[in-house]
Amino acid sequence: MQNFQFYNPTRIIFGQDTISQLATYLPKGARILIVYGGQSAINNGTLDEVKTTLAPDFYYQAFGGIEPNPHFETLLKAVDIVKKHKIDFLLAVGGGSVIDGTKFIAQAALYRDDPWKILTKTGVEVKDALPLATVLTLPATGSEMNCRGVITRAETQEKLSFRTELIFPQFSILDPSKTYSLPKRQLENGIVDSFVHTLEQYLTYPVDAKVTDYFAEGILKTLLEIAPDVIHKPDDYQARANFMWAATLALNGILATGVPEDWATHRIGHELTALYGLDHARTLALILPVLWSLKKEEKRAKLLQYALRIWGITSGTDDEKIDSAIEKTVHFFQSLGMKNTLADYGISKDVDLLVARLEQHGHTALGEQGNITLTISRQILERI
Amino acid sequence: MQNFQFYNPTRIIFGQDTISQLATYLPKGARILIVYGGQSAINNGTLDEVKTTLAPDFYYQAFGGIEPNPHFETLLKAVDIVKKHKIDFLLAVGGGSVIDGTKFIAQAALYRDDPWKILTKTGVEVKDALPLATVLTLPATGSEMNCRGVITRAETQEKLSFRTELIFPQFSILDPSKTYSLPKRQLENGIVDSFVHTLEQYLTYPVDAKVTDYFAEGILKTLLEIAPDVIHKPDDYQARANFMWAATLALNGILATGVPEDWATHRIGHELTALYGLDHARTLALILPVLWSLKKEEKRAKLLQYALRIWGITSGTDDEKIDSAIEKTVHFFQSLGMKNTLADYGISKDVDLLVARLEQHGHTALGEQGNITLTISRQILERI
Repeated sequence: MQNFQFYNPTRIIFGQDTISQLATYLPKGARILIVYGGQSAINNGTLDEVKTTLAPDFYYQAFGGIEPNPHFETLLKAVDIVKKHKIDFLLAVGGGSVIDGTKFIAQAALYRDDPWKILTKTGVEVKDALPLATVLTLPATGSEMNCRGVITRAETQEKLSFRTELIFPQFSILDPSKTYSLPKRQLENGIVDSFVHTLEQYLTYPVDAKVTDYFAEGILKTLLEIAPDVIHKPDDYQARANFMWAATLALNGILATGVPEDWATHRIGHELTALYGLDHARTLALILPVLWSLKKEEKRAKLLQYALRIWGITSGTDDEKIDSAIEKTVHFFQSLGMKNTLADYGISKDVDLLVARLEQHGHTALGEQGNITLTISRQILERI
Repeated sequence: MQNFQFYNPTRIIFGQDTISQLATYLPKGARILIVYGGQSAINNGTLDEVKTTLAPDFYYQAFGGIEPNPHFETLLKAVDIVKKHKIDFLLAVGGGSVIDGTKFIAQAALYRDDPWKILTKTGVEVKDALPLATVLTLPATGSEMNCRGVITRAETQEKLSFRTELIFPQFSILDPSKTYSLPKRQLENGIVDSFVHTLEQYLTYPVDAKVTDYFAEGILKTLLEIAPDVIHKPDDYQARANFMWAATLALNGILATGVPEDWATHRIGHELTALYGLDHARTLALILPVLWSLKKEEKRAKLLQYALRIWGITSGTDDEKIDSAIEKTVHFFQSLGMKNTLADYGISKDVDLLVARLEQHGHTALGEQGNITLTISRQILERI
């Protein structure tokens, strides 16, 4: 096991009809900005439910229109509203994009420099942020219980991440029944996203972190088991509950305890989403299997463990076991609507530009061993 | 899955040579009381290391002599020192007893009523507590990352528990190498204690909480795997690291997410420790298998899952599988020095008195279904 630090002060309030508890956990007298995305929070009634709960006791404004891959430009408009109405608490109602956007607003509202520098990390340090909480409607990113976020600048087609303990949600309300109305594509993406989050922390090299490995395997197995029911039974509460909690745990820090982490798939994927607008999860499903094939030697021990413990593969040579595990992973992704190449999504890639973007963002030595060089990233991009 | 709430703000700083980071996480200008137990913190050098780290920057006093099953009477002496020296931060250096004791001191120091009422819950509500942190030297109870504690009043031979979010440690430093000098009996107890903590949350009835079940099984498997090396290789860092993190996770709340909990074994066990001074873990190892045998029907589905997933038992009738799983559990406990009856420990039990104590403490309907009545508790006590 490697040394590690684990800290996660977000309170999770999980289960059916939990939105009714919202007011209990808000600071008395808070002036709230409800931040939401598109029509789904309106259509499924969650936004109204939140407003009804707040109405007797709290001043609030609402700001809608946060895009998937939330835009820097949109978020700055929310910052203006925060300042104008003396907002002192942010409440995200939605999925990862809305929550990530809210985390950015929380920092930008109190930042005394150009807010773009929060993302480029070239300005003064972020030392303060508005408190925030979330009502989750889309399991996928884990943003409801971590202190990370990813923001896109539409103007320059850049997608950049941030991380500070200041933006842990104070609490997050997770009601699985609020996911019943989600479109199939978002559910598919959410399952793949959670699955790959887990693998970014699991599939590296062994360090004898037994509990962390078992926890990661438990989340992978859960996602494999519940995926069909999540996709095909829109009101299967148990499947949605298991999905929601698994997605949260996949990126709340617990799977990183004592182990090395990869994240190359995410870094490369962000460039694809930024340039071509392809769904985050779909970029991950393209890149991960190719990256594994190229880094089979470095990841051999963990690939074999994955083959055995997740897919139950016991026959064949080690190479055959690994190839079989990669193949089964691809099939799982395909069962969730993922395609095999960018061309299948109608995207004509510009590998030179993508590599240049990776270089520009400092991603020249990715992966758990820092050996996903630009040359390797180019090979990955050429194959997808 | 059942509805649940999860909240755990304790920062874990885990790994070799982490005590050197202690001062970084303490509030500037804190006036500290170091709380420790017997000779072990002195002999293994941890206490000196802590003092050396604090010396340049902090005022501190030290209070030693916290007993296993910390005594109310001893803790009141520490409260006097807190008041006399205007202490405003407590630092527990030790295992679960020292940490539980420190959590009690944290409350009692600011409590404006008879401190015994903190335990009997008959006084005014506990509304404040001194901040505290821990340096863990004995993995077992999970107290380093939860908000519970158990205290014994020597005078009346009572062992009572408390729970309030006010006493979550602000941070806990877990350096596995600090466990190298532990005596065998404490290691054996620690493994059994962690194992049973996990089972109290796992072995009830199924509610389709997939991740939580996998997590619990991961901890059980880890403890089974590392037990021999923990006991026989005093300086096996990896075994100790896995033990330490598993013990913490076994009772930090994550295994309770979405599932019913039992805890009857603990409640009954506390009465045995209070009356006869038998080690906490040894009471658990006596009670649990007997309780399972008596509650086989109610726990059938989970006992079968445990038999299959933990012990790999696939042959025989369901009853045979369950009996075999219970038998293997007993053998595991025996391999850790646990005995089979109170008589084996030289204890002559008074079942009537024990049942009267359970009644006196309100433990008349224990277990996940509230059906461990005094009659069932009596049957358990008669068989051990």
